[in-house]
Amino acid sequence: MSERIRHPLFRDRITSAAEAAAAIRPGMTVAMSGFTGAGYPKAVPQALAARVEQANAAGERFRIKVLTGASTAPELDGALAKVEGMELRLPYQSDPAVRERINAGTLDYIDIHLSHVAQHAWFGFFGKLDVAVVEVAGIREDGSLVPSSSVGNNKTWLEQADKVILEVNSWQPAALDGMHDVYYGTALPPHRKPILLEHPDDRIGEPSLRVDPDKVVAVVETHAPDRNSAFSPPDEASRRIAGHLLDFLSHEIDRGRLTRGLLPLQSGVGNIANAVLGGLAEGGYQGLTAYTEVIQDGMLELLKNGTLRMASATSFSLSPAGIEEFNANVDFYRSRILLRPQEISNHPEVIRRLGCIAMNGMIEADIYGNVNSTHIAGSRIMNGIGGSGDFARNGYLSVFMSPSTARGGQVSGIVPMVSHVDHTEHDTMVLVTEQGLADLRGLAPRQRAKRVIETCAHPDFRPMLQDYFDRACRDGHGMHTPHLLGEALSWHQRMVETGSMRPAATG
Amino acid sequence: MSERIRHPLFRDRITSAAEAAAAIRPGMTVAMSGFTGAGYPKAVPQALAARVEQANAAGERFRIKVLTGASTAPELDGALAKVEGMELRLPYQSDPAVRERINAGTLDYIDIHLSHVAQHAWFGFFGKLDVAVVEVAGIREDGSLVPSSSVGNNKTWLEQADKVILEVNSWQPAALDGMHDVYYGTALPPHRKPILLEHPDDRIGEPSLRVDPDKVVAVVETHAPDRNSAFSPPDEASRRIAGHLLDFLSHEIDRGRLTRGLLPLQSGVGNIANAVLGGLAEGGYQGLTAYTEVIQDGMLELLKNGTLRMASATSFSLSPAGIEEFNANVDFYRSRILLRPQEISNHPEVIRRLGCIAMNGMIEADIYGNVNSTHIAGSRIMNGIGGSGDFARNGYLSVFMSPSTARGGQVSGIVPMVSHVDHTEHDTMVLVTEQGLADLRGLAPRQRAKRVIETCAHPDFRPMLQDYFDRACRDGHGMHTPHLLGEALSWHQRMVETGSMRPAATG
Repeated sequence: MSERIRHPLFRDRITSAAEAAAAIRPGMTVAMSGFTGAGYPKAVPQALAARVEQANAAGERFRIKVLTGASTAPELDGALAKVEGMELRLPYQSDPAVRERINAGTLDYIDIHLSHVAQHAWFGFFGKLDVAVVEVAGIREDGSLVPSSSVGNNKTWLEQADKVILEVNSWQPAALDGMHDVYYGTALPPHRKPILLEHPDDRIGEPSLRVDPDKVVAVVETHAPDRNSAFSPPDEASRRIAGHLLDFLSHEIDRGRLTRGLLPLQSGVGNIANAVLGGLAEGGYQGLTAYTEVIQDGMLELLKNGTLRMASATSFSLSPAGIEEFNANVDFYRSRILLRPQEISNHPEVIRRLGCIAMNGMIEADIYGNVNSTHIAGSRIMNGIGGSGDFARNGYLSVFMSPSTARGGQVSGIVPMVSHVDHTEHDTMVLVTEQGLADLRGLAPRQRAKRVIETCAHPDFRPMLQDYFDRACRDGHGMHTPHLLGEALSWHQRMVETGSMRPAATG
Repeated sequence: MSERIRHPLFRDRITSAAEAAAAIRPGMTVAMSGFTGAGYPKAVPQALAARVEQANAAGERFRIKVLTGASTAPELDGALAKVEGMELRLPYQSDPAVRERINAGTLDYIDIHLSHVAQHAWFGFFGKLDVAVVEVAGIREDGSLVPSSSVGNNKTWLEQADKVILEVNSWQPAALDGMHDVYYGTALPPHRKPILLEHPDDRIGEPSLRVDPDKVVAVVETHAPDRNSAFSPPDEASRRIAGHLLDFLSHEIDRGRLTRGLLPLQSGVGNIANAVLGGLAEGGYQGLTAYTEVIQDGMLELLKNGTLRMASATSFSLSPAGIEEFNANVDFYRSRILLRPQEISNHPEVIRRLGCIAMNGMIEADIYGNVNSTHIAGSRIMNGIGGSGDFARNGYLSVFMSPSTARGGQVSGIVPMVSHVDHTEHDTMVLVTEQGLADLRGLAPRQRAKRVIETCAHPDFRPMLQDYFDRACRDGHGMHTPHLLGEALSWHQRMVETGSMRPAATG
């Protein structure tokens, strides 16, 4: 029996994943842990998928509603999607099997701001939560829980669900203990109080999660790694985007709008984000802070070389190599990393107070600065909005980044009108592609269009965009945001029909 | 000399509007007071317009950049627009002459969240502020200023501008003194602190505005009323919309998600808002609070009959009859109304903490719940986003309301795809038309479409919407948010071409 379970009552509840999964019945709403492939339950969802498969074989319908922190992994989202075991999923996901089903219309998906999830559950907007399935790193003598590699919505799930299933994963580093800051000061309006967090490294909560032992129906022991999230070195386009952004930050420092200490960094995940972080190290920045969602391998390096003084997040999403590095220098990292509930990591109140520099990827932007983070051609979901809206709306700067083309140059990342809006013109300050950076602050729509076309668009698409804009300025119904409604979405339509946004003659 | 000016230094600066306006030169950025036709300068902008006209006659170019709190009145926006005296205007406006020039492409307009304006000025995003022109109700012995009928961004303008022109308007009730709560705790990141406002009636600031006397270049005496904002009794559609919303609130109370005390109300201005407020009184609600932007005549009535216990806002926009009522019962109202800077009335931190019930009008919504608050047919600006985004994103509930048709039934308020997005699907909880109310919480996009078409669309357009949705669900590029890109905006295109969204055969 695992040393990780130190309370007798919880020991008595140890059972198999299959037995635990039996607590979940068709139609239930099940809230699970997990954020960016970290800290999700590894055994119970797969056992549940096996039960669903049996039901399917017997001609019975077995589908549940699944709430998480954000994206999980093949063992959860993938397993349940493949047996058609979910009728509803929220919030952010990035699983190929889930995405396929959402776009096929067989799985309903609610894409909501990550800062809204916990409070909407508390408000009762999702109905009753029947079961919570939460991975933890251990159970203390006093019955409190050592959180796993992500905190996500776990505090809310444990409090709101009727029944709780715990997975105790001994693969998670024991050293996680003490890195968490679980805020227990939330309340429902009209009883809410200010969140007294003034610096990214302020502790305002507790290192453990609380759970009512009477609700815990099963404890399942696991020893399984988080989803591998090793990352590849940044490509040329990512390095160029990072270069433009770093030039811009220098420019802002020269203008006196930022200091060399910058402001707390929020950074999405992936190639471009890594290139930006790498660039900050090369640029000689020291003692910065991050107030963000996810800590990936690259941030460990920045912490090690002093570029970052500390990092606050809700998820610790490391590759096996990252875990090795972490374990080899446990004390160093533990004093420099804080993991919080996602309602705090993404809280508008805190993000605006700290003045985060919000840097997020996008699928496309239009010439007026509206940003699409989620949809292909207006209809197909990619992943979801995640926390980008929480940070973009409330940060000191909101930056959206993307290569200027996709699909081998056939698709433009800058379009006349985005096919879906996740961030409006009111919320976008800076757009960056490998072509250049458009600073849209203090610009009216037509001024924005000029700058976006000139600096961000790929040269292959620039003349087409300029032509659209010129004709819209001549023939549009109004000159505030000139558009030609008959062709505003024609680039996407052409992409759907031909695979390319280029016109037939030149494609 | 007015008794309102009680400090000798300011008395020495008393001058005519024409002389004061001479401090404003071409190309300057001028920050003016004013919010919803209240508390704007009445004399200097008109004197400035006369100078612009003279310059125009002499063949000289005289244009300035104008920043305000929100909408002003003919004496400011109208006067300057008519002589082509503005090159840039921000934020919210509702003036016909301004609108005409924006849509003609001769006046650049930046439409930003009202909560963002002050901080963007502090961040330096609008460049240097050359002159502030601020109406006040008086100047105290100690040189502090008694704010006028709106606070808006005045604290920021007085602090940020190089020079200050004050208009002391003796028409403003002397009884305004003491009703204001000007928060002086703001700072730039990383020095920001929590805003310790926990209830709508909490005072966290000072009753006066501060100004550096050395910056005050002119004091102009005026005696002129605010823009008349008497309102007409609600029409049938507004009463029906209010009825649906009140039924919904009752339903939420029955479900235990709200109490009879509701939560602080934010309400836009106009017919529908007035019908909703009237309905709350008829529904027997007592002791409610408002945390909103504007206090209009209707709210006085609610305060008087006890429906509202108190109201917090940034603007006190009364008709002459409203002023009369206020003056006749000064002590009663002064203890129940608070006026704050708009960065506090609209602050995301405070709105989320209080859990406001956000109720705003819209131009149109699409079947998936995206909302257009600002544009006609994607290109023409109407007014602006105002504070609707501040409240919708951060409130406990976000409600958008509109009649289901406009232009005598030729235009549908529910469309396949909005022509401009101000509030995304992620930010819209409830849509209401006179046809019914669609509660979109906890629904995925196709579920939303079904409900919006069934409950909100006008019967004349419902079959067309259902047909679009059915075909999109069959032929769309993906089933998450099914769209037919080739015709998603065709209703607007038809409206631009024929004046009607109805197809030619049935139009």
